[in-house]
Amino acid sequence: MTRARGRMNNAFDPSDTERLDPQTRELVRERGERLGPAYRLFYTDPVHVVRGLGTRLWDADGNEYLDAYNNVVSVGHAHPRVVAAVTEQMSTLCTHTRYLHEDIVRYAGELLDSFGGEIGAGHAMFTCTGSEANDLALRIARYRTGRDGVIITDEAYHGNSAQTAEISASLGEHSPLGTWVRQVRVEHLAEDVRAAAADLHRHGNGVAAFIVDSAFSSDGIYTHDVGLGAAVEAVRDAGGLFIADEVQSGFGRLGDGLWGYARHGVDPDIVTLGKPMGNGFPVAGLAVRREVVADFGHDVRYFNTFGGNTVAIAVAQAVLDVIRDEQLVENSRRVGSELRAGLVALRERHPELLGEIRGSGLYVGVDTPDAAAIVNGLRARRVLISATGPAGNTLKIRPPLVFSADDVELILDALDAVLAQPND
Amino acid sequence: MTRARGRMNNAFDPSDTERLDPQTRELVRERGERLGPAYRLFYTDPVHVVRGLGTRLWDADGNEYLDAYNNVVSVGHAHPRVVAAVTEQMSTLCTHTRYLHEDIVRYAGELLDSFGGEIGAGHAMFTCTGSEANDLALRIARYRTGRDGVIITDEAYHGNSAQTAEISASLGEHSPLGTWVRQVRVEHLAEDVRAAAADLHRHGNGVAAFIVDSAFSSDGIYTHDVGLGAAVEAVRDAGGLFIADEVQSGFGRLGDGLWGYARHGVDPDIVTLGKPMGNGFPVAGLAVRREVVADFGHDVRYFNTFGGNTVAIAVAQAVLDVIRDEQLVENSRRVGSELRAGLVALRERHPELLGEIRGSGLYVGVDTPDAAAIVNGLRARRVLISATGPAGNTLKIRPPLVFSADDVELILDALDAVLAQPND
Repeated sequence: MTRARGRMNNAFDPSDTERLDPQTRELVRERGERLGPAYRLFYTDPVHVVRGLGTRLWDADGNEYLDAYNNVVSVGHAHPRVVAAVTEQMSTLCTHTRYLHEDIVRYAGELLDSFGGEIGAGHAMFTCTGSEANDLALRIARYRTGRDGVIITDEAYHGNSAQTAEISASLGEHSPLGTWVRQVRVEHLAEDVRAAAADLHRHGNGVAAFIVDSAFSSDGIYTHDVGLGAAVEAVRDAGGLFIADEVQSGFGRLGDGLWGYARHGVDPDIVTLGKPMGNGFPVAGLAVRREVVADFGHDVRYFNTFGGNTVAIAVAQAVLDVIRDEQLVENSRRVGSELRAGLVALRERHPELLGEIRGSGLYVGVDTPDAAAIVNGLRARRVLISATGPAGNTLKIRPPLVFSADDVELILDALDAVLAQPND
Repeated sequence: MTRARGRMNNAFDPSDTERLDPQTRELVRERGERLGPAYRLFYTDPVHVVRGLGTRLWDADGNEYLDAYNNVVSVGHAHPRVVAAVTEQMSTLCTHTRYLHEDIVRYAGELLDSFGGEIGAGHAMFTCTGSEANDLALRIARYRTGRDGVIITDEAYHGNSAQTAEISASLGEHSPLGTWVRQVRVEHLAEDVRAAAADLHRHGNGVAAFIVDSAFSSDGIYTHDVGLGAAVEAVRDAGGLFIADEVQSGFGRLGDGLWGYARHGVDPDIVTLGKPMGNGFPVAGLAVRREVVADFGHDVRYFNTFGGNTVAIAVAQAVLDVIRDEQLVENSRRVGSELRAGLVALRERHPELLGEIRGSGLYVGVDTPDAAAIVNGLRARRVLISATGPAGNTLKIRPPLVFSADDVELILDALDAVLAQPND
């Protein structure tokens, strides 16, 4: 099953409402009326969720689902410590960063210390979304270098703002890349970065930054050594900066320390953060080397009304505390290994349906000739995953980090059943 | 007192720490280490806040302040219904818009109904910040019109993303406007819009949109009839759209219905929303006419991980409910009138220090030859306001909408004392 470039993976087709029950059909219709055509739903039979806890979701009819997809609620749905942190801080104080507050200084310190290297000796800045973090990172990189060019991977996704959409190839043909953007192949990273930097120099003022999702999520999830170190060297040789986009790969997702870039032995100029940072509360941000933001900070300044407000910081602190106290990085590593081992075993039973299995920790990609049928088959069995990759033919398994060995068993059993009857 | 263009109003000078007590000096230093140079603080003596309730804030030493500035917590600091809504929804479910949920459909319906007109028959879309809302509005406007040009007011502020910074003149000379941006004078709105549209046609492909903060906040707060209707007609004659930026003026701030644009008798093509929408929880969005977003929605789509998530919607719903149930629009109108009447009386006692008094509801601007001294004098008396306008010489008084008649008396007494000894 292929799809036109730019079509979203695992999208519900709003013209295909016949199979839905009457209540769902009516809710889909009203939703379309109010939210309009830019919104998409997952699955051929969209899920109407009403409650979540840990790795489980429940729909309006009381059916229980295993959530093997949502990376935002990374410490688990409705985690009590996160709820308590939001409640306490919302009842105490919600103000922005133009007043002094101790908590943001403490959290920024802990966050920076977790990076190490030059970047860890730098500064932390706060936004509300990963898009805003990447947008700000580019503003800083361009101001620092005095250049415009940006190098991205072939199927990159870095955000929904005007500027980040222009560096997000995976949004498809109707969302044009900037004239100052060059794409590189994950398989030939260093070689392509060198050529792209030269090309940007030939067509303009050169390269400001090379930005990479440390898990190459929208490219299909690549977590092995792809020569990122040499590519970073190439962009620095050309006078550009390296931005590690940890919106997907950060906060322990890859089961191997908190940060995906560290697995490649590089020390970025900017690291951007998002999704799991507040377990669903909108908080995001970046770390940046001191000298990189010195002039931008002095000349331009940056203020984000909600970014780093007292509640956002309280939630982010609770999430970081839970990751540490519940040893979720270790859990991600261990349970992720079990999951991949189980998938390898399953592939022996279904060699035509499961191809390459990639990933690290609880971020797993599995190539397959018919991702849509498997994703929807699992959904019918109340296990939620999705698809990724240039042709949408990679299963994306990316559960909350509290995923357990029992959860692994559950998803493998469901997958086995779906693979046995893929068109069921 | 004047300031260089691009300098922030009411900013603390980080080189001027001598006057601070040792603890504050140390916190300012640590903050600078961790957050870096892009962050700014308010006041020559920054306020270290730890608690808020209603219209009051308390600092780390237990001192009470009257908050006559913070428009984000528009239903009051730590409002119990807002806290309860966050707590309940965070404990129940926090998921994004690719699953079905009834609450977002209900809230979008109530929001759209509050607009009326063509825009009210359109669609609602959700982001996390006003910057994201304006950024998305421009993406939609440019896709719809196939044009790039944007017309803004002289001292406009519309956001901190790369694209919205390019339409934010008030960010100053180090943050360049786009080559496709034209500025117009508030005093000659229609005439200047017509000329700017022609100029954009001459220099490129014409005008995509004219965007206006309905309270002209950063221009100095103008709430009288500035001929906005004729200016909107002018941009439409040139094939452009009109975007009403209600991030500052919306949700009852102007005491005259929920929306600032409505006071000018116009029906916008896009309305953008932000700051007070979630009383500090990061939620924002836009309303857009159906035909304006039809192609963008179909071809490009829009997904914002946290935008419109179940918790954001629960908070936004609580805020809208409180505004209605506590009749805060009416309160804004009534108390705002008392405040302006009091300021007029005060001006009779201090004719050299208070000039033009503008505003509507609880958004008030007062011209003065020495805003910095007054703002810092009030801060010393534990009343918090700030300054705005091209030269920073307009007092900005913009309290939570729950401001009371007693609060008015308190700020007027403090202001009277400051004006009597401005260099105290």
